[in-house]
Amino acid sequence: MKKIAIYGYGNVGKAAEEAVRAAEDMELAGVYHRNELDRLIAEAPGKIDVVLLCTPTREVPRCAKQLLAAGIPTVDSFDIHTRIGSVRRELMEVARQGGAVSILSAGWDPGSDSVVRCLMEAIAPKGLTYTNFGPGRSMGHTVAAKSKVGVADALSMTIPLGTGIHRRMVYVQLQPGADFAEVEKAILADDYFAHDETHVIQVPDVSALNNVAHGVNLVRNGVSGTTHNQRLEFNMTIDNPALTGQVMAACARAALRLKQEKRFGCYTMIELAPIYLMASEEYALSLV
Amino acid sequence: MKKIAIYGYGNVGKAAEEAVRAAEDMELAGVYHRNELDRLIAEAPGKIDVVLLCTPTREVPRCAKQLLAAGIPTVDSFDIHTRIGSVRRELMEVARQGGAVSILSAGWDPGSDSVVRCLMEAIAPKGLTYTNFGPGRSMGHTVAAKSKVGVADALSMTIPLGTGIHRRMVYVQLQPGADFAEVEKAILADDYFAHDETHVIQVPDVSALNNVAHGVNLVRNGVSGTTHNQRLEFNMTIDNPALTGQVMAACARAALRLKQEKRFGCYTMIELAPIYLMASEEYALSLV
Repeated sequence: MKKIAIYGYGNVGKAAEEAVRAAEDMELAGVYHRNELDRLIAEAPGKIDVVLLCTPTREVPRCAKQLLAAGIPTVDSFDIHTRIGSVRRELMEVARQGGAVSILSAGWDPGSDSVVRCLMEAIAPKGLTYTNFGPGRSMGHTVAAKSKVGVADALSMTIPLGTGIHRRMVYVQLQPGADFAEVEKAILADDYFAHDETHVIQVPDVSALNNVAHGVNLVRNGVSGTTHNQRLEFNMTIDNPALTGQVMAACARAALRLKQEKRFGCYTMIELAPIYLMASEEYALSLV
Repeated sequence: MKKIAIYGYGNVGKAAEEAVRAAEDMELAGVYHRNELDRLIAEAPGKIDVVLLCTPTREVPRCAKQLLAAGIPTVDSFDIHTRIGSVRRELMEVARQGGAVSILSAGWDPGSDSVVRCLMEAIAPKGLTYTNFGPGRSMGHTVAAKSKVGVADALSMTIPLGTGIHRRMVYVQLQPGADFAEVEKAILADDYFAHDETHVIQVPDVSALNNVAHGVNLVRNGVSGTTHNQRLEFNMTIDNPALTGQVMAACARAALRLKQEKRFGCYTMIELAPIYLMASEEYALSLV
């Protein structure tokens, strides 16, 4: 049995716990809160095979480095696309020195969507891919909206308009005495919203809108060899934290496998053979 | 530049040639017809890095074994799903002894669809997947229909009815004097058709119906952790030989990479990191 620990216990941490408990080849080696990293590292030897890092994304590089330096494999769902390359290089170095394996950005986007994008480009190398997100809640945009003066709570929904263009529907619950026009102006001026069609809507209670549903529509029209009009499409409608937690649990298998093969380092999901994500390789081969 | 040779020059061989010529990191090292295997093996040293086996599927195991035993990496699109496991074991042994790499069943199904099926199961482990093929020409069923007494030419179209159930539309051109009722009866009794809804239709000229378009609709409704109703879908409408040839060319990169790493053996596509299929790993990482 693979001994999997969870570090960080928000939406994704809870979903990762469910994925680990549901997996036939895993046992839960512990749940650690964000102030318990030292305790985790002290308890890991012999007790923990892989740690699923379920902290806020910005804390991932720091926590991963501490664990990897101690020789403990990690899986995270770091989701700032523009920083993945540099974080991968940093973690690569630490993981190699620590004799550990890091699986970086193991969520659904980045993550399983990345695998589909890469596969689509491999089989139709010329052409355009569009990733259309939603409808679903954008974490980054929601945090940006919440940060405005006068906002008690907020929710930013991502609405796909096709060809990778998105509308932002921002629902705000105001603090007593706050001026909606001022809040709307501040949100529209924020760099998170300034480049997209954005609508700000006042509601009495944001918590009444809460829903972790999300989705994606990934389309490519490409060229194989010299043949045009190869049309490829991938769609999902999902519970967001549940999928993220499940992808992380699946990637724990790959982390262990690569460690056993002494292929230490940091890997994104496109660098993993899909069979490494499965509980049974024999069963996986039956899907070919 | 990777030196890629093509063995077998039918629809798929021609498409593979186009894919190799279009690839920035490959050069065509030769096209060999099916009676030229000995010449190919004699000429390979220093001239050929990987051979794309574009023969009829039943000839793949025999040809692959000869090449692998001579240390020459191969890629094939062997497509008899029920035999992939046993062929993989056979080629594994020969490839390891020959210090070579075989990429087995590198088409679109088996092939890229297999990668999607595996990924879908990894991220939503419980549930059902349905692979719905077509509309498009089925090679196996077309050959079976052509084999009947009185048939001059035939075309069997696969029509998806959902939940993995297919209708067979069989267009037959009769030989002079043949009896349509007899032909229809023989086709309906064939094991290829006996289990599906099948319609046999007489036409004056099968060649007028020729079209290499095909497609797939792969759907999974599964469970991530304890969360149900995770809906995943993959669709393609494609030129069939063009996609197969392109997948084979992409897998030649993986064959070379694994050979360089001395990871000799036989691999299906779910055993390959998707990044290995790409001309540029740096570019591939930008897709994450």
